[in-house]
Amino acid sequence: MMNMKPYVVGIDIGGTNTVFGIVDARGVVIASSSIKTLKHANVNDYIDELYTAITNLLVAHDAVDKVYGIGIGAPNANYYTGMIEKLVNIPWPTPLPLAQMVSEKFGLPVAITNDANAAAIGEMTYGAARGMKNFIMITLGTGVGSGIVINGQLVYGSDGFAGELGHVIMKRNNGRLCGCGRTGCLEAYCSATGVARTAREFLEIRTDASILRNIPIDQITSKDIYDAAMAGDPLAKEIFEYTGEILGEAFADFTVFSSPEAIIIFGGLAKSGELLLKPLRESMERHMMPMFKGKVKVILSELKEADAAVLGASALGWEAKPLVPAVAPQPAPQPAVKA
Amino acid sequence: MMNMKPYVVGIDIGGTNTVFGIVDARGVVIASSSIKTLKHANVNDYIDELYTAITNLLVAHDAVDKVYGIGIGAPNANYYTGMIEKLVNIPWPTPLPLAQMVSEKFGLPVAITNDANAAAIGEMTYGAARGMKNFIMITLGTGVGSGIVINGQLVYGSDGFAGELGHVIMKRNNGRLCGCGRTGCLEAYCSATGVARTAREFLEIRTDASILRNIPIDQITSKDIYDAAMAGDPLAKEIFEYTGEILGEAFADFTVFSSPEAIIIFGGLAKSGELLLKPLRESMERHMMPMFKGKVKVILSELKEADAAVLGASALGWEAKPLVPAVAPQPAPQPAVKA
Repeated sequence: MMNMKPYVVGIDIGGTNTVFGIVDARGVVIASSSIKTLKHANVNDYIDELYTAITNLLVAHDAVDKVYGIGIGAPNANYYTGMIEKLVNIPWPTPLPLAQMVSEKFGLPVAITNDANAAAIGEMTYGAARGMKNFIMITLGTGVGSGIVINGQLVYGSDGFAGELGHVIMKRNNGRLCGCGRTGCLEAYCSATGVARTAREFLEIRTDASILRNIPIDQITSKDIYDAAMAGDPLAKEIFEYTGEILGEAFADFTVFSSPEAIIIFGGLAKSGELLLKPLRESMERHMMPMFKGKVKVILSELKEADAAVLGASALGWEAKPLVPAVAPQPAPQPAVKA
Repeated sequence: MMNMKPYVVGIDIGGTNTVFGIVDARGVVIASSSIKTLKHANVNDYIDELYTAITNLLVAHDAVDKVYGIGIGAPNANYYTGMIEKLVNIPWPTPLPLAQMVSEKFGLPVAITNDANAAAIGEMTYGAARGMKNFIMITLGTGVGSGIVINGQLVYGSDGFAGELGHVIMKRNNGRLCGCGRTGCLEAYCSATGVARTAREFLEIRTDASILRNIPIDQITSKDIYDAAMAGDPLAKEIFEYTGEILGEAFADFTVFSSPEAIIIFGGLAKSGELLLKPLRESMERHMMPMFKGKVKVILSELKEADAAVLGASALGWEAKPLVPAVAPQPAPQPAVKA
């Protein structure tokens, strides 16, 4: 590690904002800023603005030439290929060789992965999973994402897309329609939008009183349900129990796969704390295969939410490798020298 | 690899027989033999007989002092600890430090794991998974076992017991009772015994004719169902379709976890071939998350069944490490020398 440059840059590309920051080896965000992702219909203009904005930040913090690498978290980003395979709501052409484009622009090694994998790497490098070799990160946001770590390595699978645990099937009959086109996925029940769907179902089917009936039914958010539950509303509490029950069933299934030391929860719904965690843990233990009972911790992310996306992406920067130009002539093979 | 000894010994400990063999680096079983597992109520007597029998085999094949290590496949064996944690139908005390006991007896490095993991290592070393970094081995026998390989490494998880894919829950309501004490596990439907249970259910609930009605209902085996299906019996064929449907649903769920290149099937039921594989593959693709459709191969093991258990265990012998006595005095720390 001697002479290694002291900083990495983390970039989190979201549908609205692109957030980036300069991060040191202990996970301190030295400085951060953002640009609008959608301002540029042309991806080259976007990369130009990103380059200018990050360079300004580096100059302002005396960090030019001190950056080891860049890590990027982006939807549907493939760690193996450096490509974004698909974009929703962003008009750039796909597959997009983003890692290569950013690497050429900055003259720095770049690695990319999806948001949930970046969160898992961030948690392992700087957060609740420090020292853990086997854990699963579950992000409960608009969707349910996951990053799986086994033997200290992120699981990318044969094609770079492993770890889509939001899409295990929890209801095999009459399951809710999921964004992936199938029915009954975990995400359709336990994402923030899934929880709001549960509220609508409960309110429509049942007749008992609830503070939630004061809100137009199609405008209820997971935050409203949290507030109602904290105010003691029984129906709202039941929604969290229902959500925790399903997550617990799913976590018991995940355990027979990789026997993780911990499952770490991140994202908007994680802020519900014990309201979600208590029924989740109870359900997980009740459904757990006997040999794993009492072994798996369910804990909250230790990354500050404001920093987490950038931190997670930045951690990937430490493992970025210099770009090998795909078209440049390769040197002739040399005789192998035994180490 | 220079000067590495050319052979390993594989030992497969089953409830009835203990099979062992001398195997070379290309997976050729030079010689094999067996002893009765249950002949000795005392495990030390068992190890003495095993030592004598293996030594005789080594002498007869001029292989004494040419063995690099010993690999053992045994039920509930923990790779990390070298212990057998639990034994059913075998009266030896548990937890049993089998790796240490065998290593001390033979003066050779010993590694142990459970049968399904050994099968996965065997398949990766000598069989259908050569060259694959990400695959899942499913053994369809009395139970449903699994060995998961990710990034070229077997997945043992935080406690050594990862990969119990026979115990994901496939039926969350009114599921069949499973040997693990829960209900609805994959194993309760898709093991050889699960398939026989399906036959009994179909025959009891339905009234249509079937060759299977000629057999006393509680004596029907998966082999009888296979024979009936091959003879064109529609009910027997439906049993395979039902089994393949559930396996396909399970395989689609496994794929979102680790995105394997292939899922390899081994064990008694695998001999059903296309009778099982056709409905299995169709179900898997129908239930597959769109991004993984058409990517995962479902193939049969390439290991000969008679050799497979020994081959799988033997492959583990190549990664066995010399025993470090737990109680012996450690040498004083030496100044580190950089390589």
